[in-house]
Amino acid sequence: MEIALVGFRRESLEHLQHTGSFKARGAFNTLIRGPVPEAGVVAASGGNHGAAVAFAAARLGIPAQIFVPELAGASKIALIERTGASLTVVPGQYADALEAALAYEARTGAMQVHAYDAPATVAGQGTLAREWEAQGLAAGTVLIAVGGGGLIGGSLAWWQGARKVVAVEPETSCSLHAALAAGRVVDVEVSGVAANALGSRRCGDICFGLAQELRVPSVLVTDAAIVEAQRLLWREARLLVEPAGATALAALLSGAYVPGPGEKVAVLLCGANPVIEPFSD
Amino acid sequence: MEIALVGFRRESLEHLQHTGSFKARGAFNTLIRGPVPEAGVVAASGGNHGAAVAFAAARLGIPAQIFVPELAGASKIALIERTGASLTVVPGQYADALEAALAYEARTGAMQVHAYDAPATVAGQGTLAREWEAQGLAAGTVLIAVGGGGLIGGSLAWWQGARKVVAVEPETSCSLHAALAAGRVVDVEVSGVAANALGSRRCGDICFGLAQELRVPSVLVTDAAIVEAQRLLWREARLLVEPAGATALAALLSGAYVPGPGEKVAVLLCGANPVIEPFSD
Repeated sequence: MEIALVGFRRESLEHLQHTGSFKARGAFNTLIRGPVPEAGVVAASGGNHGAAVAFAAARLGIPAQIFVPELAGASKIALIERTGASLTVVPGQYADALEAALAYEARTGAMQVHAYDAPATVAGQGTLAREWEAQGLAAGTVLIAVGGGGLIGGSLAWWQGARKVVAVEPETSCSLHAALAAGRVVDVEVSGVAANALGSRRCGDICFGLAQELRVPSVLVTDAAIVEAQRLLWREARLLVEPAGATALAALLSGAYVPGPGEKVAVLLCGANPVIEPFSD
Repeated sequence: MEIALVGFRRESLEHLQHTGSFKARGAFNTLIRGPVPEAGVVAASGGNHGAAVAFAAARLGIPAQIFVPELAGASKIALIERTGASLTVVPGQYADALEAALAYEARTGAMQVHAYDAPATVAGQGTLAREWEAQGLAAGTVLIAVGGGGLIGGSLAWWQGARKVVAVEPETSCSLHAALAAGRVVDVEVSGVAANALGSRRCGDICFGLAQELRVPSVLVTDAAIVEAQRLLWREARLLVEPAGATALAALLSGAYVPGPGEKVAVLLCGANPVIEPFSD
């Protein structure tokens, strides 16, 4: 398992962002553009995006209403609650939370902050690629986990082919893989260990367009490989991430992505909010 | 609790070193100096130093015998076992493990790698101060947790007063504080949540000499403040550290150390190997 240690660079620890994922980038980028209506902002989320929007809103003094599905889990729900945002836990999946958020938007006039398919969200996530580049990214290939495609979309938009970006999805939640295979965005069933972060039923149009145009390689990993990567990160590097945060690494460890001779590969750790709570309170 | 977030810089994450603490620095510095006898190396440790020596020995192809007290805990014991080193768990405390290691040295001729009071160990730990400086350390004051004094000794030796170094110890394990008060190294009782990392009954002569000469401020924190700092690091920054790793931060949060107006303070996170195991295997 030498592979994980050799590639370890602190710059890729995006799970140490405020609220424990890269999502704060898109949330702040959206909110600081303004103008935000008096009703504030609303967001639907598997948990991380909601926590990021709630955090950014609190910092900027904007009211926020967040909808999450039950599967968001205690860790992410607590994260949102601590910001002081108004939170509604919706039965079902991300799509159900999104429906509730759209109804709230229609009813109140609040600004919808989409988790992955809005230009400001995608551009915000893309600042990550820009910063990583500025910090001296040495790898020619970057593995990125994909849910709805905000992070990979922003990264592709920034790099425009200057780095080889590989999309990694769980077999159990693979909306981009299915879309690339079908040649158009399609609905998929979502489940599995990373579902609350990567389980979007459809990938975003922005992401799909870029991935198709730039011929992004798309690989799938099993839930077992994700959990193995998650455990390895704790055991070998004392990094505690959620399943989604270990998904890109799982592609390398499981052989779902095999680098060519001399190919340098970077793996982004993107989310740190596991259901596992190290402290019991 | 703004304080923790404002001060957060990735450079201070020394708990993400190989084997989860700064101890790999001193271990490698000692072992690469050679010559190492055929019998290899021996070390006594509350856990982190043993893991570091075992890791460095494995990397360099040197046989290693490690002695730890029972209180090292499952997490640190597993870390040592995974290196392939020979491990003996000794009933009692660190001092008992040290006695066993000294007996082993006398019997076999193995090279003793002292956890904190040998020049090569202290100099190795001091490379941390040198690197931190090179990475642009902006704070004039650095808070460092103290067990036997290897880390703070090396840091003091490097900085020689160029930065204000504050020694932080648990009330329950405070060998340097007691020595500074007495004007000489004295024995103390050790207990508490950080005992397996900071619980040395006597601080090292090297550390004591430097701390006395450079008039190092010494503050104490309660076990409750340490646990609160540990929880805050997870909750707010998704950094999972052991109690010793949160001890320096506890001084800031609890008011044991109060910075002057405009004083910039850096806190070093030095150990990541909690008894808490996020994964049950």
